[in-house]
Amino acid sequence: MLNAHERLFLIDCGEGTQMQLRKTRIRFAKINHIFISHLHGDHVFGLYGLLSTFSLMGRTNPVHLYAPENYDKILKSHLNDFDIKLSFEVDFIPLSGKDPVNILDDKYLTVASFPLQHRVPAYGFLFREKISDRKILKECIDKFHIPQIRIPAIKKGEDFITTDGTIIKNEDLTLPPPNPLSYAYCSDTKYFKRLASFVKEVSLLYHEATFDKSKKDLAEITCHSTTLDAAKTALNANVGALIIGHFSARYKDIEPLVDEARTLFPETYPAIDGKSYEVGNITDL
Amino acid sequence: MLNAHERLFLIDCGEGTQMQLRKTRIRFAKINHIFISHLHGDHVFGLYGLLSTFSLMGRTNPVHLYAPENYDKILKSHLNDFDIKLSFEVDFIPLSGKDPVNILDDKYLTVASFPLQHRVPAYGFLFREKISDRKILKECIDKFHIPQIRIPAIKKGEDFITTDGTIIKNEDLTLPPPNPLSYAYCSDTKYFKRLASFVKEVSLLYHEATFDKSKKDLAEITCHSTTLDAAKTALNANVGALIIGHFSARYKDIEPLVDEARTLFPETYPAIDGKSYEVGNITDL
Repeated sequence: MLNAHERLFLIDCGEGTQMQLRKTRIRFAKINHIFISHLHGDHVFGLYGLLSTFSLMGRTNPVHLYAPENYDKILKSHLNDFDIKLSFEVDFIPLSGKDPVNILDDKYLTVASFPLQHRVPAYGFLFREKISDRKILKECIDKFHIPQIRIPAIKKGEDFITTDGTIIKNEDLTLPPPNPLSYAYCSDTKYFKRLASFVKEVSLLYHEATFDKSKKDLAEITCHSTTLDAAKTALNANVGALIIGHFSARYKDIEPLVDEARTLFPETYPAIDGKSYEVGNITDL
Repeated sequence: MLNAHERLFLIDCGEGTQMQLRKTRIRFAKINHIFISHLHGDHVFGLYGLLSTFSLMGRTNPVHLYAPENYDKILKSHLNDFDIKLSFEVDFIPLSGKDPVNILDDKYLTVASFPLQHRVPAYGFLFREKISDRKILKECIDKFHIPQIRIPAIKKGEDFITTDGTIIKNEDLTLPPPNPLSYAYCSDTKYFKRLASFVKEVSLLYHEATFDKSKKDLAEITCHSTTLDAAKTALNANVGALIIGHFSARYKDIEPLVDEARTLFPETYPAIDGKSYEVGNITDL
């Protein structure tokens, strides 16, 4: 779940997602956008229950559902098979293409999908904050008698001309906005070189690391990544930090996996169930 | 989950069933029979994940799946949509009919399905232990010099004739077998009179009680039961004990529901997540 300016973006929805959401006390009504990376059960099988629960709660706001292009038909037929009549609209946005595609653009951020390489069509997601306005300095408003009507333009970067014709440079009136943050999600995928270009310099990259480095062959066969694959993409993309997850159930202790990734990319952290991470400010366990 | 002679029968499979099974440390490989009462999500949506997990674990033993007759097609198409190739066979046994039907008959027990009355075709299940052999008394074997070869017939009730022609009555050689136990499962259903005849005198009846008695109209509309509906069926069927469950999420405290049912049928107990109950020997919380 990504929280961006108190709007919630649910990314993949495996079995038991609604139980996990209940545990973390997330308000279901705040979830308006759901992203499904690919049509494998561990990424989808919680969706039917979640949509049913939305409906039982009497939801009327639409759900915007971003998923591989053939899922619309599958979802409708499955809801129908199980006698589920939803109380709200599902606005389906199909994912496709061999290049990044903008799939959402709102006040605070843009979201793009980009192709991964898995056994079935799979997509990653890139959430990018928009550059916000510059901060106008309160004392300058008083000092230069700036009228209210001029403020929005100054926040966008314009200079101010006083009544006597003096030009006050924008950088003397304002502070630059905070750096926009970005988050990319990559699961499931095998390593491929171009992936780094899709997630170039994001503040935080989530990348699957199903296997340790000794299981390179198994990763290749199953179209998954090793710890080093994830770290290599993080390194080549020059991201701020890397979270690895989707570990094979064979690993009871995930510390060695994190240590492996850190040999290539030191700013690596493990995805832990129920834990929150601040984009741009990841701290260790 | 019903455990009969260390064989496990999974009855309905809602979302998160595999997580609950893990918590109770039940061995997945011991589950060979799965019963689905009807095709509503809260009774089925854990099945895809459970079958996938069986497959990931390399299961080869078949799963015997008892479900409404149209589910075979739905399951196959859904597994196919999600790229799931199972490592084992699913032996599908369709449920149908307006009368009880025997669906399983093995060494220890028989299982029958019987129709419920819900918004979609729904079935209850009746598990009945077979009458076991009489217990032969060890001291009689020695006293009357009973040869090994005669013992199975005596256990079945035959008398024994000694070498000098004396007839020893079976009841002097053996003890009667323990009373066979039986368990019936009814979910989801509205009240109907004939249901009591399907579950006549079972040792333990599980019956849904979605609503309290004040929600009689809502129960009627949604084809569910109230506490008193469940108790009435238990009373008319003269069952040994009643467990009620499937409570609406509106009830934070279920004690009042149990108290209501007990006004009609005192031997009522609530179904509590994770708790075990011994058929024929239910004890209070």
